[in-house]
Amino acid sequence: MTFDPTTLRYNDAGLIPAIAQDAENGDVLMMAWMNAEAVKRTLETRRVTYWSRSRQAFWIKGESSGHVQDLVDLRVDCDRDCLLILVRQTGPACHTNRRSCFYTSVGDEGETELMKPME
Amino acid sequence: MTFDPTTLRYNDAGLIPAIAQDAENGDVLMMAWMNAEAVKRTLETRRVTYWSRSRQAFWIKGESSGHVQDLVDLRVDCDRDCLLILVRQTGPACHTNRRSCFYTSVGDEGETELMKPME
Repeated sequence: MTFDPTTLRYNDAGLIPAIAQDAENGDVLMMAWMNAEAVKRTLETRRVTYWSRSRQAFWIKGESSGHVQDLVDLRVDCDRDCLLILVRQTGPACHTNRRSCFYTSVGDEGETELMKPME
Repeated sequence: MTFDPTTLRYNDAGLIPAIAQDAENGDVLMMAWMNAEAVKRTLETRRVTYWSRSRQAFWIKGESSGHVQDLVDLRVDCDRDCLLILVRQTGPACHTNRRSCFYTSVGDEGETELMKPME
């Protein structure tokens, strides 16, 4: 691999935010965190792999649920401190079984649920 | 305002990541940070306002450059620890004068620049 993940800028915990976007329709699906090794594994395996802050372990997205994310493109931002991951998402991205984690809109009347869990 | 920004989950620095997405074509433009007061100001003024970590000050996006972001919709994720901000973006979102901050793709041949600065 010619790209060196250590050239990215990580926070004090060694993590960088990664935004997962549906490569087909542009929907933003979720945001999670990666460390340098997770970036490396994602690029090498083409299977999106995060670092779970709660479990303090690598998190191959969909490994148990089957709701995997296949990497289409990985992009770094101008400051090299945020990633945009274009993915082919199988099933729901959200643990609530919704396609996207961003299913709640905030408006003048408070919060509105924009989508239901998938069947 | 019926929504209470303090119901969101902020990190130890009191900040929450906010992903700005072009409401018209779905492009992810940038990621920056907000504190509870920035969320409140964004919702009240409909002009997207971040918290600048480098300047430690409110950052009304485009206030000096004119490259403002008008709020179209604000969404919270399932964990209430990340925001998706759909915006009407005037001009470039990136300080490099590119439409999006995510203009660098990482592939087998290293990094590729996907877009040029706007005129």
